[in-house]
Amino acid sequence: MVGESGEIKIPQSELPRLVVVGGGFGGLRFLKKLDTSQFQVVLLDRYNYHTFQPLLYQVATAGLEPDSIAGPLRKSFQNRKNFYFRMATVSKIDGENQIVETNIGSVKYDRLVLACGSLTNFFGNDDFEKKSFPLKQVPHALNLRSQILQNFEKAVLKTDENEMQRLMNYVIVGGGPTGVEVAGALGELKKHVLPKDFPELNLNKMQIYLIEGQERLLGAMSEYSSRKAFDYLKKFDVNIYVGKVVKAFDGETVTLNDGMQIPSETLVWGAGVKGNAIEGLTHDITPDKRFKVDEYSRVVGFDNIYAIGDVASMMDEDHPRGHPMLAPVAIQQGQLLANNLNGLSKGKPWKAFKYLDKGTMATVGRNKAVTELMGKFKYGGFMAWLTWMFVHLILIVEFRSKIVIFGNWLWNYFTYDRGTRLIIRPFVKAKARKKAKPEPLVEV
Amino acid sequence: MVGESGEIKIPQSELPRLVVVGGGFGGLRFLKKLDTSQFQVVLLDRYNYHTFQPLLYQVATAGLEPDSIAGPLRKSFQNRKNFYFRMATVSKIDGENQIVETNIGSVKYDRLVLACGSLTNFFGNDDFEKKSFPLKQVPHALNLRSQILQNFEKAVLKTDENEMQRLMNYVIVGGGPTGVEVAGALGELKKHVLPKDFPELNLNKMQIYLIEGQERLLGAMSEYSSRKAFDYLKKFDVNIYVGKVVKAFDGETVTLNDGMQIPSETLVWGAGVKGNAIEGLTHDITPDKRFKVDEYSRVVGFDNIYAIGDVASMMDEDHPRGHPMLAPVAIQQGQLLANNLNGLSKGKPWKAFKYLDKGTMATVGRNKAVTELMGKFKYGGFMAWLTWMFVHLILIVEFRSKIVIFGNWLWNYFTYDRGTRLIIRPFVKAKARKKAKPEPLVEV
Repeated sequence: MVGESGEIKIPQSELPRLVVVGGGFGGLRFLKKLDTSQFQVVLLDRYNYHTFQPLLYQVATAGLEPDSIAGPLRKSFQNRKNFYFRMATVSKIDGENQIVETNIGSVKYDRLVLACGSLTNFFGNDDFEKKSFPLKQVPHALNLRSQILQNFEKAVLKTDENEMQRLMNYVIVGGGPTGVEVAGALGELKKHVLPKDFPELNLNKMQIYLIEGQERLLGAMSEYSSRKAFDYLKKFDVNIYVGKVVKAFDGETVTLNDGMQIPSETLVWGAGVKGNAIEGLTHDITPDKRFKVDEYSRVVGFDNIYAIGDVASMMDEDHPRGHPMLAPVAIQQGQLLANNLNGLSKGKPWKAFKYLDKGTMATVGRNKAVTELMGKFKYGGFMAWLTWMFVHLILIVEFRSKIVIFGNWLWNYFTYDRGTRLIIRPFVKAKARKKAKPEPLVEV
Repeated sequence: MVGESGEIKIPQSELPRLVVVGGGFGGLRFLKKLDTSQFQVVLLDRYNYHTFQPLLYQVATAGLEPDSIAGPLRKSFQNRKNFYFRMATVSKIDGENQIVETNIGSVKYDRLVLACGSLTNFFGNDDFEKKSFPLKQVPHALNLRSQILQNFEKAVLKTDENEMQRLMNYVIVGGGPTGVEVAGALGELKKHVLPKDFPELNLNKMQIYLIEGQERLLGAMSEYSSRKAFDYLKKFDVNIYVGKVVKAFDGETVTLNDGMQIPSETLVWGAGVKGNAIEGLTHDITPDKRFKVDEYSRVVGFDNIYAIGDVASMMDEDHPRGHPMLAPVAIQQGQLLANNLNGLSKGKPWKAFKYLDKGTMATVGRNKAVTELMGKFKYGGFMAWLTWMFVHLILIVEFRSKIVIFGNWLWNYFTYDRGTRLIIRPFVKAKARKKAKPEPLVEV
């Protein structure tokens, strides 16, 4: 697969080459705003699509088709001049010689934008990495969906009460938006969808556990929102444990730090992420694997390497440990960097980054969500849920997806149904589950 | 996974137990019509969903989401009394002791309905089985979709013209409806979708080959339809070879019986199917692996075993080698068998099967299809295409899918786009491709 010279084939150009690693929220917004008449642009991503991560949990709980939350990257830039997409997994950056190395060959750059996001953080625990279900990519969501549905297909076969209960217990670690949203969606499955599909089972036995190490859920939001989310989840009979940590998981039993044991085959991992700091630029990487950048998104020590989004740690007075790893930060950093680079030819001075926190929100189920706008307006319930829907439909990149997703939501809302509960991934037994790493997309 | 006794757990009942193997067109229609107050019904299927096979080719060519052509089986029978679904792969039938054996245990029956359909027929050629792409199940369609899209991602990297051409050549073997529809859909991708995604490639180089052993395409239809389909495919520049057979495929080159060689990594297998006659009932199986049945769908030699659809060979004057392996035959046989069984309690005499051929059709692309109704009306073009769309929307089982599919079609029609071109399956290199057998869904 590697070209004769070891270099990836890209047409010659007189323009300086700008390489972008990653087609997530940051990379995509950056490229949308960039004036590509000034650069030859090469976008590298291991997938050929952008993933709308905020809705992955709905794919995992059979509410949306995987195709509806992913947009083909080539389609996003169909009519762009000087734009080249290459599906490749970046393995190393050679900052001195200005070379990016990938599984399909190397590529030289004049400027480099690192928008490679974050990885699930298992805190070095091999069991968690191999046996739990993370939720960062489309294949993760499909694996979790199949696991949930297969658990119930297996539960109807069990004569042993303990074995059956283990299949009907779900443990979610991490009380941030992902954990809260998965717990709420599982609560809806338990209440509205699964009883119709499995009349043989007593769905009251299905138990959902949400484990959070801090003293409250949604720690990044206000106490008001934490309390609201807590109350909403309680209506779905979710068992919430705050101030507790998952210590071990052997594929059959989850053990907490206080010794409590929960028999379960399914541990959903929403406990943390770390920056996807690619090998090579070894100095000035934070302990959580992010590249330290200045207020112009320049990686410390380099004039021509930039990092935006989750993989960048931009510290200021308000954010002593860098900005939060959130899509809006990535989007705003991408937009500013593009504007700064666009102004280069006119010699415009660069603007420094200032994060505008428009708000945060999380949904817990039909008619239930919490929303905080501009740090001022806090509200819950049906209006928050409408806001959540509206904002996500606006944000999602693909126009087509908006129609499909809105259609699905209308359907789900009025029928109390979930349309997409198919098991289409190979089953992997919890005990023997392999490391859930991204699939190799191109073999060399 | 196997219960203590080796028997699958199913509640006790005073009703006679009727076991159905397979939730395809035949099994589904049978169960829809069956009066389940007279039987305890157990449906076995290796998947938890019904596959609408006529539209698999659209999933494979990025026109539809996989979820839209599959309906969860449990959902279809949510409010049925005495109905039990078990996700299981049947391995053997013991007709003497009235036992079905599966990967999750055994199940006893009083009456047994075999609706287990057909398998791709590779005619004993190991290379074809391991290296070509069949199109019978949802995972097949996803594999082919990923292969097509990855071929083009790889082609942009090639400096060697021959290597590039091999990735852009597609060989389809079998000129029946599947082959014709895949060829047409690839033609549409070549003409309308891929040039926008891959401006670097000269899409005129993409070559589609359709190989048919008989002297004309769509051999089951009239010469008029064959000629129309031929003309339509020619408009997409499809290379059509009739009276030729694929002799060998090594993953890189397709060799025909006349010595012609086509360099290609992608051989789509639409050359034939065989009945999925499960082991155990060894006598009276046809050479193409179908159970011989009488005009009441009773398997020869048994009073309480019935076979319907592709796996049944019901011979009569008009069909000396059994009825064609088509969805309408399966549906009509399922309906009649249900009616006959429903009448048992009233002592009604059984009706013999008589196939009503409502017509056949195949589509070749936008505004292009051929339709033959009731053996009388033959027409092509836009009207045939509208008929094709209408009939498929009516037929598809899930009401929800109708909306999703119709929406997709409208979108595709007016935008000349394909929304779902994501690569979400692991890449398997052609040379090393493993046997494309159905995924193991439950491990024992």
